[in-house]
Amino acid sequence: MAYQAPIKDQLFVMNELARLDQIARWPGFEDAGPETAQAVLQECARLCEEVLAPLNAVGDRNPARWDQGEVHSTPGFKDAFKQYAAGGWQGLQHPADFGGQGLPKLIGAACSEMVNSANLSFALCPLLTDGAIEALLTAGTAEQQAAYIPPMIDGRWTGTMNLTEPQAGSDLSLVRTRAEPQGDGSYRLFGTKIYITWGEHDLADNIVHMVLARVAGAPEGVKGISLFIVPKLLPDAAGAATVRNDVHCVSIEHKLGIKASPTAVLQYGEKDGAVGYLVGEENRGLEYMFIMMNAARYAVGVQGVALSERAYQQAVAYARERVQSRPVDGSAAQAVAIIHHPDVQRMLMTMRAQTEGSRALALMAAAAHDAAHAHVDPGQRESHRRFYEYLVPLVKGYCTEVSLDVASLGIQVHGGMGFIEETGAAQYLRDAKILSIYEGTTAIQANDLVGRKTQRDGGQTARWIAQQIEATEAELAGSGSAHARAVHRRLTAARLAFNDVVDFVLAQGKANPNAVYAGSVPYLMLAGALVAGWQMARALLVAEHRLKDGVDVEFMRAKVATARFFADHVLGALPGRRDAIVQGADALAAMPLAAY
Amino acid sequence: MAYQAPIKDQLFVMNELARLDQIARWPGFEDAGPETAQAVLQECARLCEEVLAPLNAVGDRNPARWDQGEVHSTPGFKDAFKQYAAGGWQGLQHPADFGGQGLPKLIGAACSEMVNSANLSFALCPLLTDGAIEALLTAGTAEQQAAYIPPMIDGRWTGTMNLTEPQAGSDLSLVRTRAEPQGDGSYRLFGTKIYITWGEHDLADNIVHMVLARVAGAPEGVKGISLFIVPKLLPDAAGAATVRNDVHCVSIEHKLGIKASPTAVLQYGEKDGAVGYLVGEENRGLEYMFIMMNAARYAVGVQGVALSERAYQQAVAYARERVQSRPVDGSAAQAVAIIHHPDVQRMLMTMRAQTEGSRALALMAAAAHDAAHAHVDPGQRESHRRFYEYLVPLVKGYCTEVSLDVASLGIQVHGGMGFIEETGAAQYLRDAKILSIYEGTTAIQANDLVGRKTQRDGGQTARWIAQQIEATEAELAGSGSAHARAVHRRLTAARLAFNDVVDFVLAQGKANPNAVYAGSVPYLMLAGALVAGWQMARALLVAEHRLKDGVDVEFMRAKVATARFFADHVLGALPGRRDAIVQGADALAAMPLAAY
Repeated sequence: MAYQAPIKDQLFVMNELARLDQIARWPGFEDAGPETAQAVLQECARLCEEVLAPLNAVGDRNPARWDQGEVHSTPGFKDAFKQYAAGGWQGLQHPADFGGQGLPKLIGAACSEMVNSANLSFALCPLLTDGAIEALLTAGTAEQQAAYIPPMIDGRWTGTMNLTEPQAGSDLSLVRTRAEPQGDGSYRLFGTKIYITWGEHDLADNIVHMVLARVAGAPEGVKGISLFIVPKLLPDAAGAATVRNDVHCVSIEHKLGIKASPTAVLQYGEKDGAVGYLVGEENRGLEYMFIMMNAARYAVGVQGVALSERAYQQAVAYARERVQSRPVDGSAAQAVAIIHHPDVQRMLMTMRAQTEGSRALALMAAAAHDAAHAHVDPGQRESHRRFYEYLVPLVKGYCTEVSLDVASLGIQVHGGMGFIEETGAAQYLRDAKILSIYEGTTAIQANDLVGRKTQRDGGQTARWIAQQIEATEAELAGSGSAHARAVHRRLTAARLAFNDVVDFVLAQGKANPNAVYAGSVPYLMLAGALVAGWQMARALLVAEHRLKDGVDVEFMRAKVATARFFADHVLGALPGRRDAIVQGADALAAMPLAAY
Repeated sequence: MAYQAPIKDQLFVMNELARLDQIARWPGFEDAGPETAQAVLQECARLCEEVLAPLNAVGDRNPARWDQGEVHSTPGFKDAFKQYAAGGWQGLQHPADFGGQGLPKLIGAACSEMVNSANLSFALCPLLTDGAIEALLTAGTAEQQAAYIPPMIDGRWTGTMNLTEPQAGSDLSLVRTRAEPQGDGSYRLFGTKIYITWGEHDLADNIVHMVLARVAGAPEGVKGISLFIVPKLLPDAAGAATVRNDVHCVSIEHKLGIKASPTAVLQYGEKDGAVGYLVGEENRGLEYMFIMMNAARYAVGVQGVALSERAYQQAVAYARERVQSRPVDGSAAQAVAIIHHPDVQRMLMTMRAQTEGSRALALMAAAAHDAAHAHVDPGQRESHRRFYEYLVPLVKGYCTEVSLDVASLGIQVHGGMGFIEETGAAQYLRDAKILSIYEGTTAIQANDLVGRKTQRDGGQTARWIAQQIEATEAELAGSGSAHARAVHRRLTAARLAFNDVVDFVLAQGKANPNAVYAGSVPYLMLAGALVAGWQMARALLVAEHRLKDGVDVEFMRAKVATARFFADHVLGALPGRRDAIVQGADALAAMPLAAY
């Protein structure tokens, strides 16, 4: 189905909620104001709508194909990738020094949403390349940066992240791939890596693998892991990347979704070892990888938003076109388009509210990231850094979990047609299911939220967020409209529930860690819903203001209605979820392990 | 993965909650007591575990295949169907007069759960045959019954239901297939039917299509639809079914799941018309079809239970085996099986609680059906009939919707492995998604619940259920254990929420039908969760009693823990859902239709 980039809603969030105009006042972002954003989004939309979106179903039906160690991508992808690279999209957020455009993450995230809506499998390739660039920017030498970043930015090369091994999934302390120093500064790597997204393909000339491995004699566990660059092709005497390195794609996975994206098993060192170059210092690999992963986790959250948006668009289009049954209120004697039926509206509004809510959550996080890096006031940088760090697990966890529900509702709106693969709605559900798993499952995000993001600072950031929400509540109280009053009531109850959960996480962390971690994913989902609903409430206030001026009436009315829906249907569930977190672990404690 | 029939839990529900011993006191069911049930379940388990379950993944990888109008089923299915028929399983609930065994629905449902757990695609064929038998038992002539029912019960023939047409999905008033009387009592049918499950295949010698069509001159809409028998093969001069009728399979669908089950497009009357025989009276077809559909809807609900059970079993097996990360409570210095991690326990308990809750809901409904037919007291028959009728949309809607969540959690427990098709967990999600769609989407069930099951009797049945729940609350109050107290609190709050919703549905039905129907699916889900949670609470009371006697300690402790979990995590959400139903339609009213 055709995809239309939601530029209007993106710009609304960026300008009205995330205040791009303020970001554009900080050094380095002077050219990145609302006008630039609009122009960039429009240009990105063209590529996504015309080139990438039509290839989405094609990729699902003609997945990447393994043949004798080579991976052939879906027909059309190679040309699309050329256009993507030629447009400069890979460098959007990266420094101008290396050929990038150095735009704020806020603009980058909006573009990334579009690319992922258009074609999730395709978008994974640049997503991983971004991660590799990020790691090299952080920990690479000037030479490494000069050698690897420009060709990745201009699309001649792509990047990958190599963490997982068959025995080491979420637990990287078990990584076994070994790296043997060669005396010349290089290493030889031996081991097997699995689940390597776009780990082998024919879109680009070379692939820069960023690989976690152990140097002989390194400490056990995560403190003995180092990060290496292992290019697929090594430079020849003339410096051209033509010499095949000893890293090979043994197979690719047969997956539920994202079928056009090859998920490779990579064998390092079948013969004399894969040549690798240490990044940064030995045994600090996990630290560097976390930088990549943090960026990648945020990006996967945006994939959730993207998938929700695409599923929503297709469901609305079908609901407008499919005629079935008379209206329950007797307003027509004939069958009507199903969008007139209340339950279809409920499903569409659920999809819409979650899409807009998760978009606002993700874009607010991007703005916090930008402020953390570019704000002129160091105190502001620090508080935005904490805010961003708190939001990353919410963006990753919440936006991906809800995308699964949204995609499932998208099928449901289609009825029987939704179950037929040719309709396209089913692909979104299949694709969505990976999002809550890769780059750390929702449980891993929730561990991060509980441990590093809540307990470590004694709940300070969480309290700070609750205070900001209180300020919005005061504004809602000032509005006086029926919708604002209703949203106010739900938001207050949700914030109080959040406070209770944070208290519980802080109070019981040591005494009863099992109970806290049993509630960790529900805590993440509660916090994600709260922050998304808070942003929807802010959007309602802006929209009511604009409506007084008679600006964009239909759009603003829809914003009010969507904010109201989010409050009644999503925020309204949070007090009940609080109870399940705070009081809900007794059942687990009572369950005999052998009886499962 | 291996499947093990959950006989112990099934018998617990059947004996302790659904009181099979009482059913066995009524005429016709004298031989159907607990001992018979156990023997039947064990025999069924053998077939399911050894023959049907191993073919489940095979069918997913080797779907039914269309070739020139013929459909070739998955290798192994034909032989499995022979064994199924030879075991007499098709006739389990059907009258002995036609070769059946006439057992209560309570026993039949438990067996049906197993068959569906083992192999959902396979199980659909007998499910539809059951529906055809049911319709003929209700409305067929003695001759029709004699001609068609015995060969369907002994597995020589199978049956189908033909409702949907391309322009007529949920809205059967749009059915256009026409039937022309031939003067000899027979008709010729012309039209296209879609989504016909097992509409063409090679498992049996003949297929008995039950087809909705219009006789020329019939009234418009649903009051002009008649039901016809259209056999794939007509009798020759000697009475043997050898003459090909003019009904042909034009294609089968390419679906998200249940791939081994061919979903046929059937063309009636490409040449001179498909010969059909009227069932019952002209223009009463929909009425008869509803009998089939009611049975089929219940059966699809059981499919939901079945799928949840299978997904749960696989997730538990993986969680016991997969070693990853140290425990958060520091109880071990090494990585442990992930079943030790609190979030994995939360996921498994969610799956388990929903599986057991929906099983109890479904089996209680089956027992109500049996009482409605066989109870010696006509008043009891009537009240059980109403109870059963009320429960059917809950069984269909609730058990299938939760199975989707359960299957999704099943993948999540597997992490990255879950997304790999070879693991098998993904198949359950793909298969589950049809359950909330076919035989009437959840919205259609919810319409039924609101209109025919709540408003029509002025809420009497709903109130009666609430009273029964109050009685259980009183028992919980009498127990005094901490678990019983916690469950008591949740159950009471949930029942009060239910009462509020029923009040709303009754009060606003005429004034604001759009608001009522916008809340119809949430009402269904609330009512389903309440009845399931109520049964879990009853189970807790039984288990506490048995624990005092020291019987089956581990099983009973698990039952208590699971009931507690259901109360805290599922029932606890219902008051919030009440608010979204009663107050949640304002947002829809505020949403401009063009702005979706």
